[in-house]
Amino acid sequence: MRMPDPDPAIIARRAELAGIDLRRIVGPEWVLDDEAERRPYRCDGITAYQATPLLVVLPGSTREIQDVLRFCLAEGVKIVPRGSGTSLSGGALPLEDGILLVTSRLCAVLSVDAVNRVARVQPGVANVRISDSVRHLGLCYMPDPSSQMISTIGGNVAENSGGVHCLKYGVTANHIVGLEAVLVSGEIVRLGGAFQGAADGELDLIGLLTGSEGLLAVITEISVRLVPVPETARVVSMEFAHVEDACRCVGAIIGAGIIPAGLEFMDRKVVNAVSALLRETCDPRTDALLLCELDGTAAEVDALIETVADLARRGGAIAVRVSSTDEERERIWRSRKLAFSAIGKLCKDYYCTDGTIPRNRLPDILARMAILSRTYGLDYANCFHAGDGNLHPIIMYDAARPGDLEKAEAFGADVLRACVDMGGVLSGEHGVGVEKRDLMTHQFAPADLRQQQVLKCAFDPGELLNPGKVFPTPCRCAEFGRMHVRGGALRFPHIPRF
Amino acid sequence: MRMPDPDPAIIARRAELAGIDLRRIVGPEWVLDDEAERRPYRCDGITAYQATPLLVVLPGSTREIQDVLRFCLAEGVKIVPRGSGTSLSGGALPLEDGILLVTSRLCAVLSVDAVNRVARVQPGVANVRISDSVRHLGLCYMPDPSSQMISTIGGNVAENSGGVHCLKYGVTANHIVGLEAVLVSGEIVRLGGAFQGAADGELDLIGLLTGSEGLLAVITEISVRLVPVPETARVVSMEFAHVEDACRCVGAIIGAGIIPAGLEFMDRKVVNAVSALLRETCDPRTDALLLCELDGTAAEVDALIETVADLARRGGAIAVRVSSTDEERERIWRSRKLAFSAIGKLCKDYYCTDGTIPRNRLPDILARMAILSRTYGLDYANCFHAGDGNLHPIIMYDAARPGDLEKAEAFGADVLRACVDMGGVLSGEHGVGVEKRDLMTHQFAPADLRQQQVLKCAFDPGELLNPGKVFPTPCRCAEFGRMHVRGGALRFPHIPRF
Repeated sequence: MRMPDPDPAIIARRAELAGIDLRRIVGPEWVLDDEAERRPYRCDGITAYQATPLLVVLPGSTREIQDVLRFCLAEGVKIVPRGSGTSLSGGALPLEDGILLVTSRLCAVLSVDAVNRVARVQPGVANVRISDSVRHLGLCYMPDPSSQMISTIGGNVAENSGGVHCLKYGVTANHIVGLEAVLVSGEIVRLGGAFQGAADGELDLIGLLTGSEGLLAVITEISVRLVPVPETARVVSMEFAHVEDACRCVGAIIGAGIIPAGLEFMDRKVVNAVSALLRETCDPRTDALLLCELDGTAAEVDALIETVADLARRGGAIAVRVSSTDEERERIWRSRKLAFSAIGKLCKDYYCTDGTIPRNRLPDILARMAILSRTYGLDYANCFHAGDGNLHPIIMYDAARPGDLEKAEAFGADVLRACVDMGGVLSGEHGVGVEKRDLMTHQFAPADLRQQQVLKCAFDPGELLNPGKVFPTPCRCAEFGRMHVRGGALRFPHIPRF
Repeated sequence: MRMPDPDPAIIARRAELAGIDLRRIVGPEWVLDDEAERRPYRCDGITAYQATPLLVVLPGSTREIQDVLRFCLAEGVKIVPRGSGTSLSGGALPLEDGILLVTSRLCAVLSVDAVNRVARVQPGVANVRISDSVRHLGLCYMPDPSSQMISTIGGNVAENSGGVHCLKYGVTANHIVGLEAVLVSGEIVRLGGAFQGAADGELDLIGLLTGSEGLLAVITEISVRLVPVPETARVVSMEFAHVEDACRCVGAIIGAGIIPAGLEFMDRKVVNAVSALLRETCDPRTDALLLCELDGTAAEVDALIETVADLARRGGAIAVRVSSTDEERERIWRSRKLAFSAIGKLCKDYYCTDGTIPRNRLPDILARMAILSRTYGLDYANCFHAGDGNLHPIIMYDAARPGDLEKAEAFGADVLRACVDMGGVLSGEHGVGVEKRDLMTHQFAPADLRQQQVLKCAFDPGELLNPGKVFPTPCRCAEFGRMHVRGGALRFPHIPRF
């Protein structure tokens, strides 16, 4: 199924020819062909997978993107669109025989409509900048992936990103009210509109493009829903001597009808690593820590935060702390925010994957991870969104030790398969990319995958947009009789390894 | 573009032949071919459009639906799927040369998972039955179209139905976590899963099927998100002497960062009609009435309800009433619930359409309706979801007066065009159906419509599923080279008029 590496001489010649035309479209300084210039673009958030793109192209307008896509369609050149390249599933991994279309220059907040609570932004705007630009209006953009300081809204839409607050407020898909996108033909489609509810009365292409991982079109404009900044937010930190008690407490909070703004889980290893980093001491009995944030009106939060604290105490918590001020709240959250940095100090390399299970299967999946850790001889830690059952097992390995990366990947894949077997899914918020594509057959029946691929073909019959991602086998575009692509049979790219 | 009526003799012969095969699939008593038996199925919620279906088929299982679709694909028979047939856009209007596939027999609540807050139900379950079957668990299904006593969840998904509570809780699409559907090929696809968030890591076919008005597949199983019944709900009734004050108050409530569970507008005509029906007197100065419901914890609701009442008083309300008990709350809501019955007593016939505008354009669209009323010489009334800018102008006419229906339709179409021109859209919650299909070109550019039709073709290349709905022109399926349909060129059905 996988093809051999493309011939370097052919690639070089192709890049040279394409570069000439692309420079005419975007301007000479916005096409990078030098090896040194292209090197920083070789990977996304998963550094284990690397490939130097044919060319890096940085268009400055929607019009330029249209022309770039028209050129690529005519010449059969593959395109990997990306923003900041923070994908954690290899979704933005370049192709050696394809251009990397980077949206960084399209970084304007185009308009803010405070009355209808919508901001219209370009795809290269960093997630956090949206909230920054509307804070003076008492508004914010709610989805908050951990990468929000640098990840772009275009990438967030492509991956349907989540975040701590998505338990209460929903993922990216719930906050997009309009999109402009360029099809591979160079045509523009405009979807939805200027306010929430504007997308009724049409086939839901906004929903389809959200989470489509760059396979369907290049998103050039996004209208996001803004919401009022909650009046108050308070957090409870709850330490447990037994992981099972922490899992039960998650169920008890949700079961009480409370919908926290965030409900996070950290295991002993993470808690210890963070304490070491902060030079603090922690209770040696602590086996798991839960952080539960509530937001809303002060009246509501003050009433519910005590209920949560009570549930924890009655559920066997050995320490419960409730924030009274914003400073205390931020201090409590600091441990969660530093978790991945702290773990990084414990090991040479780590591999963090992302799967989802029904909330009540938390103890089962944690037990399974312990068994897999012994099987593979690799250590691991857990820090994840417990409230919505979205796991992020952190598997520690040493890339310099032969076979270790492969073991870490196999460990991660086994966890994801176990998620599916327990009624969950392969991805919570990182997408499929190249990381999970070969696991898709574990989750989807052939008819389910085929119907997804038919949709891919309905947008991109030549498979030029981000090929090799998401689907474990090439699409069957020929069935549609619309092969626009010049230059012979489609190639299915291999996953380049670093 | 529109074809002449099908030949009755050919239709009758076709029905006879199809009936033999379909009876073998679903059992003889579940295929209705008698004229008298088919008559009740001639229209949906828009009685102005009527057509007697070729046959009415009531399958009893997903397996039978697969076989019915396989038969229809092989024989080129068109299919209109429906539940209770309460569509308000002619979306469930039968075709004289197509079968009506009615899901009423598939009415089981299959399972309830209280921990993961999901109910798995068949498509023929009435909306209200879902909440009824989980109330003992303290849970409910939130979207509440006015038709919820009889409209089915399958129909709600097909039309992406809204309702009073959707301002705060979102429309149907926000509450669907999994679907099973049968493609026109008879194949089953399973989308999403057993809990919220189960749909990540795949192209979002759930979103695409939700609101697809029966054009893509037949939905056979739905997993809906359940939420805790809010602890408290209270309502404020606010009367205004000037419509403009009421519109401003809508903006003030939302602008204050409050997200009501419902925010409804009724004009003088509706208020008077309801008062007459209830034999109550109302303040003769009242030109508009707002109802604002808040729900959540008692602490939150009690705090916010006073803020809303204050905003109304400061905004010129001439009367403000806040409910203190559930009985008072229900009494206040009664006027809204009786609105359409009350208007029905004022006129021979009425036509209620559905469009959406940005909230701040409310005064403009109301002024435009007044002008259109004079132009067409038809009276009208307004009762709608003000909080999300979802209008339901009620245009009064007399079907017995020649030309009156056509005038009412033209009036409605002009309102919808004005909605689009003001930055809104053609549909808030009723869908497009046949009612608005010819207006689609007013909202969508050719490229937008084409891409929607390409998706239609990716599911149903022979255009057998609910043809003639949503799109103003036939799809160009031949482009895909996958014409499965026997029996020659596709016909584009006309809209049959009663």
